[in-house]
Amino acid sequence: MDEETILYQQVSEYLGQKNFNRLREIMTNENPADLALLFKDFEEKDVLLLYRLLPKELAADTFSYMESDMQEDLINGFSDKELREVLDQSFIDDTVDMIEEMPANVVSRILRNCDAQSRNTINQILKYPEDSAGSLMTIEYVNLSKNLTVGEAISRIRRVGPDKETIYTCYVTEARKLIGIVSVKDLLIAKDEQLISDIMETNLISVDTMEDKEVVAHHFQKYDILALPVVDRESRLVGIITFDDAMDVIQEENTEDFSKMAAMVPIDDSYFKTGVFSQVKNRILWLLILMLTSAVTGAIIAQFEATIEAIPILVSFMPMLTGTGGNCSSQSSSLIIRGLALGEIKTGDWFRVLWKEIRIAIIISAILAAVNGLRILIFYHNPTLALVLTISIIATVILSKMIGSLLPILAKKIRLDPAVMAGPLVTTIVDTCATLIYFVIALQFFDI
Amino acid sequence: MDEETILYQQVSEYLGQKNFNRLREIMTNENPADLALLFKDFEEKDVLLLYRLLPKELAADTFSYMESDMQEDLINGFSDKELREVLDQSFIDDTVDMIEEMPANVVSRILRNCDAQSRNTINQILKYPEDSAGSLMTIEYVNLSKNLTVGEAISRIRRVGPDKETIYTCYVTEARKLIGIVSVKDLLIAKDEQLISDIMETNLISVDTMEDKEVVAHHFQKYDILALPVVDRESRLVGIITFDDAMDVIQEENTEDFSKMAAMVPIDDSYFKTGVFSQVKNRILWLLILMLTSAVTGAIIAQFEATIEAIPILVSFMPMLTGTGGNCSSQSSSLIIRGLALGEIKTGDWFRVLWKEIRIAIIISAILAAVNGLRILIFYHNPTLALVLTISIIATVILSKMIGSLLPILAKKIRLDPAVMAGPLVTTIVDTCATLIYFVIALQFFDI
Repeated sequence: MDEETILYQQVSEYLGQKNFNRLREIMTNENPADLALLFKDFEEKDVLLLYRLLPKELAADTFSYMESDMQEDLINGFSDKELREVLDQSFIDDTVDMIEEMPANVVSRILRNCDAQSRNTINQILKYPEDSAGSLMTIEYVNLSKNLTVGEAISRIRRVGPDKETIYTCYVTEARKLIGIVSVKDLLIAKDEQLISDIMETNLISVDTMEDKEVVAHHFQKYDILALPVVDRESRLVGIITFDDAMDVIQEENTEDFSKMAAMVPIDDSYFKTGVFSQVKNRILWLLILMLTSAVTGAIIAQFEATIEAIPILVSFMPMLTGTGGNCSSQSSSLIIRGLALGEIKTGDWFRVLWKEIRIAIIISAILAAVNGLRILIFYHNPTLALVLTISIIATVILSKMIGSLLPILAKKIRLDPAVMAGPLVTTIVDTCATLIYFVIALQFFDI
Repeated sequence: MDEETILYQQVSEYLGQKNFNRLREIMTNENPADLALLFKDFEEKDVLLLYRLLPKELAADTFSYMESDMQEDLINGFSDKELREVLDQSFIDDTVDMIEEMPANVVSRILRNCDAQSRNTINQILKYPEDSAGSLMTIEYVNLSKNLTVGEAISRIRRVGPDKETIYTCYVTEARKLIGIVSVKDLLIAKDEQLISDIMETNLISVDTMEDKEVVAHHFQKYDILALPVVDRESRLVGIITFDDAMDVIQEENTEDFSKMAAMVPIDDSYFKTGVFSQVKNRILWLLILMLTSAVTGAIIAQFEATIEAIPILVSFMPMLTGTGGNCSSQSSSLIIRGLALGEIKTGDWFRVLWKEIRIAIIISAILAAVNGLRILIFYHNPTLALVLTISIIATVILSKMIGSLLPILAKKIRLDPAVMAGPLVTTIVDTCATLIYFVIALQFFDI
C-alpha cells in the first residue's frame, strides 16, 4: 500500500470517529501539495471541515495547490473572515490564476474581500492578454536602490521578505526603471560595506508585458534563471515571473503540441475536467476536414476501377503502402516539429533538413522494399507484383519523408503553428500521393 | 535584424581586424548562454581565440553552456593549466554531464587535471545508472548542524557559499542523515539567536539515488521546489538535484514521448547532431513491424476479393474509413498518454475513461456518418452504399476510440511505456478492424 492510501485511510477513520485532535496532528505533518491531493478523495462538506482543522498558514498553502473547482467549493463555504485570511496569505499571481477560473459572483466576492491595493493590482494584471508575460507575473518582488550598502540591503530583505514570493533575486530600480539585478547569493558573499551599484549585474534579461508565454519559457530554459523581470515599454519594472510558473508554462506548451499533433484543438483543463461536449467540439473539426480530404484519395481509386477489376490483388497491398507512407511522414514531421519548438531547427535550415531526410529515406526505403519484395516473391510467386511494390515503396517513402519534413517548416515560415502539420494532416496528404504513385506504376508494368 | 545577428557581425568584423580589446569589451557585456550560442557560428580556431579573450569566470560560465562537441574541441586546444582553471570553476554535476559525452582519452585528461577529491566524487557519480537521480545530482550543497544559531548559519553560508551550486536551500544533517531543510528565506526572516532545529522543516521530500529521473521531474512540478535532496538507502544525504537540471529532464521526457508516439526509438541528441545511420536505426524497427502487421489487413482484403470484383466502388471508400478510424484513435491515445504522463489519469481510471470516450464517440460518429451519408446520397444516388458506410463509420469510430483509450492504460498497467501505444501502432490495429467491419457489413446489405 502506498503512502497516499495509508494517509487516506487514517484520515477517513478519524473523520468517522470525529477525532479532530488526531486529524489535525496527522495533517499538520503533511506537505500542502499532498494535502491538496488528499482532499480530492473527500466530499465537499468533509473538505471544508478538514480544511478548517489546519493551522492558518498551512491552510493557505494547501489552498494554493488545489484545483480551481475545489477552491470554488471552499470559497462558497467560507465566511468573509475566512476568505480574507486566505487572500492575505496568498501571493497576487496565485490569486489572479484563481480568479481567472471562477464564475463572476465568486470573483466579485473575492475582490470585495481584498484590500484596496491588492484589488488594484489584480484588476491590472487581469487586463493583460491570457498568454502574455503580464498575465503570469507577480508584483511581490524585492526592489533595492543602487546606493544601498550590502548590509543595508540584507536588512531590507529581512524586513520585507516575508511578503515576497521570492527574495533570491532582487531588482535594482531607479525612477522605476530596471537598472540591475542582485542575487541573494551575491549579497551574502559580498562584504557588508560594498555598494549595490558595485556588485549588481547590469547585463539584464527581461521580457515585455505583452511577450508570449512561449518566449518566457524559452528564457528560463536558456538562462537557467529563478525569476524573470517583466518591464513595460518604457523599461519600467512592473513585475516578475517565478520559475514554478515557468515550469507550468513549459508543460502547458508541450500538452498543446501533443493535442495539435493528434489533430485536436488544445484544451486548458485536464482530461476529466473537460466535459463530453467540449471534447467533441475540440475533436470534430479536424476529423471532418480530414474525412472530406480523403475523398480525393477515393476519387483517385475510382479512376483506376478498371485496373482493380483486372488485378484485384493490387487492393490488398494498399493499406501496407499508405500505412508505411503515413508512418514515415509522421516520424519526420514529429522530429522537425519538436526541433522547431526547442529552437534546435530554424526555418532557414530547410535545405539541410531536406537533404538529411532524403538520405535517410533512401536507406530506409531500400530496406523496406527489399523485405517486402522477398515476402511477395515467396508467398505470391509474382515477380511483376514484387517489382511494382518495390518501386512504389521506394517512391512513397522518399516522398513521405520530404513532405513530412518540409510542411512543418513551411507552416512556421508562414506563421502557422508547425504542430498542426503533424501526423493526421500529413498522413492524409501522403495517402493520396501514395495511392496515385501505386496505380500509375502498376499500369506501367501490368498488361491491362 | 535581431540582436544575435548584430552581435555576430560585430564580433566577425573585429575578429577580422584583430581588434582584441574591442572584442573583449563587447563579449564581456554578454550573457554566457548567448556567448555559447554565438561561438557556434565560428570556426574551431576562432572559438579558442575568442574564448581566451574572456575574463576567467565568464569563460568558465560560457563553457558550461556549450554543447559537448564544442567543449571537446576547446579541451583539445587547452593547455593543462587552462583545463584546470575551467574545472576549478565548474560545478561537479556539469563536469559529470560533460564527461559522459566525451571520448575516453579526453575523459582521462579531465580526470588527471581534477583535484583528488573532485576526481573521487566524479567517479562515484559516474557509477549511477544513466537515468537515475544519482547521475543528476551535485554534491555542492550547504549543510548545517541543527545546533547552530541562525546568525552562525548565515555566517557559514557567507563563508562556504561561493563554491556551492545553490545556497537557497540548506540541509541539516546529523551523522550524515538528512534530518531537516532550511531555506535562506526562512533564515533571513528568523531572528539571529534562534536555533536551526527550531526553524527547520522536518517534513522532508527526497529521492533515493536509484530513483528514475521521471519521478525527480514529478517532484519538482508537484512541490514547486528549488532543489531536491538525494539520499542513499540508509537515509544519508549524498547530493542534491537543482531545478535547472529538473527542467532539462522535463524537456527530455517530453521529447522522448514525442519520438515514441511517432514510432521511433528516442534519441538523446538534437536532430542535426544525430547522424543519418543513427536516425535510420531509430526509425527502421517500428516501420518494419508496422509494415508486416499491415499484411493482416491485406489478408482480410484478399478474403473479400469476390466482393470487390462485384462492387469495385467499395474500395474507393476504404481510405476514408481507415483514415477516420486512425485519426479518432490517435486523438484518444494522445490525450490518455499525456494524462498518464502528467499523473492526471491513473490506470485505475480505465472505466471512467472508457465510458467518457464511448459517449464522445457516439456523438462524433453520428456527425461524421451523417455528413458522409449525405455526400454519398448526393453524389452517388446509392442509398444502400450510404447505409453501409453510415453503419461502418459509427462502428469504426466507437471501436477506434475504445482501442485508442484503453491500449495506453493497458500498457502502463503491464509496465510498458504508454507512449509506444500511440498513433502508428494503434492506427495499424484500427486499420485492420475497420477493414473487417466494412466488408462484413457490406456483405449483409449488398446482394453478391
